[in-house]
This record gives sequence, structure tokens and C-alpha cells, in this order.
Amino acid sequence: MAKEKVCVVGSGNWGSAIARIAALNVKKHSDIFEEEVTMYVHEEEVDGEPLSSIINEKHENVKYLSGVQLGSNVKAEPDPIKAIKGATALIIVVPHQFAEKVLEGMKEHLAPGARAVSLIKGVKAKGDKIYTYPGIISSILGIRCSALGGANIATEVAQDQFCESTLGIMPEGMKSDDQNSLSDADLWFKLFDTPTFRIRTVPDVDGVALCGGLKNVIALAAGFSDGLGWGSNTKSAIIRIGIMEIKDFCVHFFPKVKAETFLEESCGLADILTSCISGRNRKVAEEMIKTGKGFQELEKEELGGQSLQGPQTAEQLHKFLEARRDEVRRSNGFPLIENVWKICYEGMSPEKLIEGL
Amino acid sequence: MAKEKVCVVGSGNWGSAIARIAALNVKKHSDIFEEEVTMYVHEEEVDGEPLSSIINEKHENVKYLSGVQLGSNVKAEPDPIKAIKGATALIIVVPHQFAEKVLEGMKEHLAPGARAVSLIKGVKAKGDKIYTYPGIISSILGIRCSALGGANIATEVAQDQFCESTLGIMPEGMKSDDQNSLSDADLWFKLFDTPTFRIRTVPDVDGVALCGGLKNVIALAAGFSDGLGWGSNTKSAIIRIGIMEIKDFCVHFFPKVKAETFLEESCGLADILTSCISGRNRKVAEEMIKTGKGFQELEKEELGGQSLQGPQTAEQLHKFLEARRDEVRRSNGFPLIENVWKICYEGMSPEKLIEGL
Repeated sequence: MAKEKVCVVGSGNWGSAIARIAALNVKKHSDIFEEEVTMYVHEEEVDGEPLSSIINEKHENVKYLSGVQLGSNVKAEPDPIKAIKGATALIIVVPHQFAEKVLEGMKEHLAPGARAVSLIKGVKAKGDKIYTYPGIISSILGIRCSALGGANIATEVAQDQFCESTLGIMPEGMKSDDQNSLSDADLWFKLFDTPTFRIRTVPDVDGVALCGGLKNVIALAAGFSDGLGWGSNTKSAIIRIGIMEIKDFCVHFFPKVKAETFLEESCGLADILTSCISGRNRKVAEEMIKTGKGFQELEKEELGGQSLQGPQTAEQLHKFLEARRDEVRRSNGFPLIENVWKICYEGMSPEKLIEGL
Repeated sequence: MAKEKVCVVGSGNWGSAIARIAALNVKKHSDIFEEEVTMYVHEEEVDGEPLSSIINEKHENVKYLSGVQLGSNVKAEPDPIKAIKGATALIIVVPHQFAEKVLEGMKEHLAPGARAVSLIKGVKAKGDKIYTYPGIISSILGIRCSALGGANIATEVAQDQFCESTLGIMPEGMKSDDQNSLSDADLWFKLFDTPTFRIRTVPDVDGVALCGGLKNVIALAAGFSDGLGWGSNTKSAIIRIGIMEIKDFCVHFFPKVKAETFLEESCGLADILTSCISGRNRKVAEEMIKTGKGFQELEKEELGGQSLQGPQTAEQLHKFLEARRDEVRRSNGFPLIENVWKICYEGMSPEKLIEGL
């Protein structure tokens, strides 16, 4: 069996943390993987030096995951074509707004038999269609794509604090179609599972991607509740209703998605919980209430103009629901999602968050 | 149709809060209910005056829910026989350790056609059997008993903060068996549902009772995690695993119980969340770690000797699992429940909480 060659496409906070895990596991499973893990680094200068050079000297991403040794077998590479050369296991973890451009640039240069796993958060809505990133990756690269998601704050994962993550696999990737290669499920499990980063596999790639893509809308609702000084009964009710709405939304519009992925797995329940307790979207939503500022203003002030995922997602879901209005009218609708959108974009009073629930 | 007469059996923090809700709803549905709601008060003196007299003068339970008007139609009654006289709708909300004695004293004096709903937290294990309070109430009183549970901190409910609660009904109580009376489901829904205290009904009385009975074992685990300074990835993983263990435990030993009650309803997911974020068991568990004291010592120091629910429940589940060891060995076991028990009673190091998960 030819060895698998791993490339991490992306080098932010989460990309660096997952490169470290992959670098440990390729050594552990040296019968399956080549020892070098390449990491595509969007080049930038840090104190006058290229980030990729710093990573290759210090084995540390000083800008996005400082203080953590990635492993001497992680090789940073600023040229995307070189980075993926010969790579058969692609971990896609670029910010969603850059994903399509990066993938388009790579698609002619893929190694034969390459497979991908998406760690990208977010969804893409266009008119009356909504797409997940594993689906987008699959269609641009023409290869199978799995998904990984869970209650996985990068800095905690990098410290080997105990946590779980969910691996979503396409049904055809659950078993190997050829005795000379691993199934998708086996490949990614062996690359990610450690004693403190526990992988559970589910045959539901879109479910895993959608949980991570939509959770921040609930986190905003939880943050509004905190900002209004509402108690824990109310916050728990909002989180419960949020989980159910997102689950119902996805099961309705993605008929193959499984409710259990949302209700039972780390990528659902546990990740939503973490986002509602300590996530960035929750925090900004709380500040919107306490300061009276809009999210756009707080993005400028506190995130250096970086966009917050929650409002963007709420906007995408709202437009999608508008485009499918006839269909939605026949169901119970999604009042929490719509109320979050109205508070973010229409100036609705946050006290009305629970209206119509 | 003869009007229903409501009696709240119990007058603690939660009993008083629910008496207030019932007192509002009997007036709203005056075609169904008699206006007076009696409340059985275990008599005690407050500043030299009987608590029941104070409640009847001030319409306020100054000891257990101070600052809240219960409604002038709530009548406190220290004699249990007088309290339940003519009552057809019994809300049982005494602490679980007194429940059987109180019920035994009442059973000869029930009004014809009486029905009950249990708000008691806890379970009762005896050898290789485990009982829920709706079951115990049904068998002592010989009447049908439903259950109410959810993310319902009493003081927040008393302030009309938005929340949800789950009503668990026996299958035979979902529909009326006689056109002259309401079904159990309708009776309790009309007595409890308000715009800010939202009732969702499920045909699963034991599931609702078990969620509230077992949740504090997870709350202890969450508190240990907090005390150890573990991050939110780990805490979310522990909560997720806890929900799944409790669900699996109940589905295994109570075959009629429905998984959805744990995963989708306020009495499950949302109540467990609240207990893991702001409950008393969570807090004491955190202090066990920070002070190195046992829970018994903290009960004396901080709860005036009152017993904490979590350790008691862990002990009951442990004994029950011991008695059913052969059966448990064949399943995956319940490592989180057992680890919580070992930390509480066997001096196991709390860092081992995640062992075997």
C-alpha cells in the first residue's frame, strides 16, 4: 500500500493546532503515512521575516498559535502548488471567504487518489440553494470530502486538554472500495484521533459541516440573553430551541442529514454549548446589548475589521428562507433564526428575541 | 363537568413558585378549576409566628420565596388531611425524603377521581430495582401520576422570566377516557402553561422524572471539571457524555422511556445545561476540588447539613449497577457515573474523571 502524504491547507489558529495533531499521528502510524506534513501558509511578514520561514525554523506558528511546538515534521510552504504536491490527504482549513479561490488554484495539481476533509466553518447560500463546504470542495476538486467538527477551541486542543470531535463521512467513504487503500473513515480517524482528542465517526458529512456552519446564530441569541441580564432558565431555553431549529432546518433542506448528529455528537450539542458559553459571537452579542452598538461597529473596534461569523450566517439563512418562503410558510418556520437576523440587521429590539418562539 | 380543585402538596421554593403559577391559571380557566388553591405547608415558626398564618396574611412565603406574591387565592393549610380535602388535582412537590411518609398519611383521604403530578427530584434505588417518584406516588395513592420538569430555577420562574418546562404523561393520560373529564395532558397543561412558562407535553412520564432525578450526577462532573480549571472543550465533552450515559442508562433499564425526552426537551438537555452552568451541585463539586474537602463537610458548612442531591443519586446508581453488574458488564457500562461515585465516596483523584470515557 502506498503511503499517504498529508497537507494542511491553511495555517491559522485551528489549522496550526490540527497540523500538530496530524504531525503526531503520522509518526505513530508510520506504516500508513509519510512522515512529513506540509502546511500551506498564506505568506505574511512577522517582524520583517516571512512567517513560513519562522515556522520552519522554530516549529511554531508565532503569529496564530504562539507557544506551541507543532512538531519538526511540519513543513510550512507558501506556494500552494508545491504544498499539495504528491499530497493524498488534504486537510482544508482556510477561512471560508478564501476557500474557493485557493481550491481553484490547486485543482489542476492534485495527486492521483487525493482525498480531502473540510474543517471550514460556515455555509454558502445563493438564491434558493445552500451549500456546505465539503460539497463545494468535492465539486471544485472532483474528489471525496469528509468533515471534522466539534467543541474544539484551538488553544485548548493544542494543550492536549481532553475533548471530542466528530468526523463526518460520506456513505461511500465508510468502507474501503479497494483492498489497497484505507476507507475515508479509517484514514481520517488514524490521522486525527489521540487519547485527548477523541474522534467519533458518523456517516453524515453534511450534518457535521452544517452544525459548525450554523451554530453561531444560536451563540448570538445566547449572547443577547446574557446582555439583557436574562437568567439561566431563559438562556437554556434559547439554546434548546436553537438546537432544535437548526436541526429541523437542516433535516428539512438536506434530507440525508441525520438528527442525531445535532443532538448527540460533539459537533452538535457540545460545540453549540461551548459557543454559547465562551465563544466570540456570544461575547460580541452581549456587548451589542450593553453598548447599544451594531455588530459592524464592534467588528471594527474589537476584531480589527474581521467579520463575525454569526451575523453573516444569519443573513445567508434569512435570504435563503426568503427565497424558499412558500415552503417555509407550510412548516413552523424558524423564528429564533429570523429574530436573530432582525436584531442584527433590522434594528429590532433585542427584548423581542423570544417573540414567536 | 365538575370543577377541578387544586392542592399543592409542599411549600418550599419550587412548591411556592408553582403555586403562584397554578393560582394564576385557575383564575384564567375558571370554567375548569375552583378558584382556591390549597397549599399543604409543613408548619414551622418564623419570627414566632406559624408560617402558614404568615402566608395566608401576606400571600407570600417569606421563608422560601420571599418578595413574591403568590396570589390571594392560595390558601396555606398545615393539616395534610384538610389540605387535600376535595382536591382532584394534586401537585406533589415535597422533598423526596419525606414523600412517602406524607403520601401514606394522605392516601385514605383522597377525593374520588383525584390525579397527581410529581415535581419531586430524585429516584429511589433498592437492591436491583429503581423507582421514579411518579411510579411511587401512583402505587401509594392508587391514582395516575404525571411529571413536570425542566430548566426551572424557582426564583426566575417567580419573576416570570421566559422558560420552558416538560410535562410527562402516561400513555393512558394523553386522551380523556370520559367526555365529562379532561385528559391528564389537558388538565396539567391548563394548570401550568403561561406565556413565560411554556409547557411541552411528551407521552413519557418516567423519562421526565428520570432526567430531573439523575441530572445532578452530571452537574457534579461539570463542577469537578470547573474546579480542576479544565477548559470549555473538556466541560462540553463531559456534559455531552453525561447526557448520553444518562439517556442510555434510562433507555436500558426503563424500556418505555424515550431517548428524545433526554435529547430534545427542557427536562433533559436544557435542565442538565442549567445545572451544569449554575446549579448548587456544580458549585459544591467545584469547591470540593478547590478546598480538598469532602461533600459531607461542605454540606455541613454551606447547606446547614442539608443533603446534596448529586452524591446521593450517584450512590444509589452505583448500588443499583452493582446489583445488576452481570447485565452492565455486557453493555459499555457507565464510566462517567461510576467515576463521579468514586470521586465522592472512594477518594479517587478527580483528575481521573475522564478515565475510561
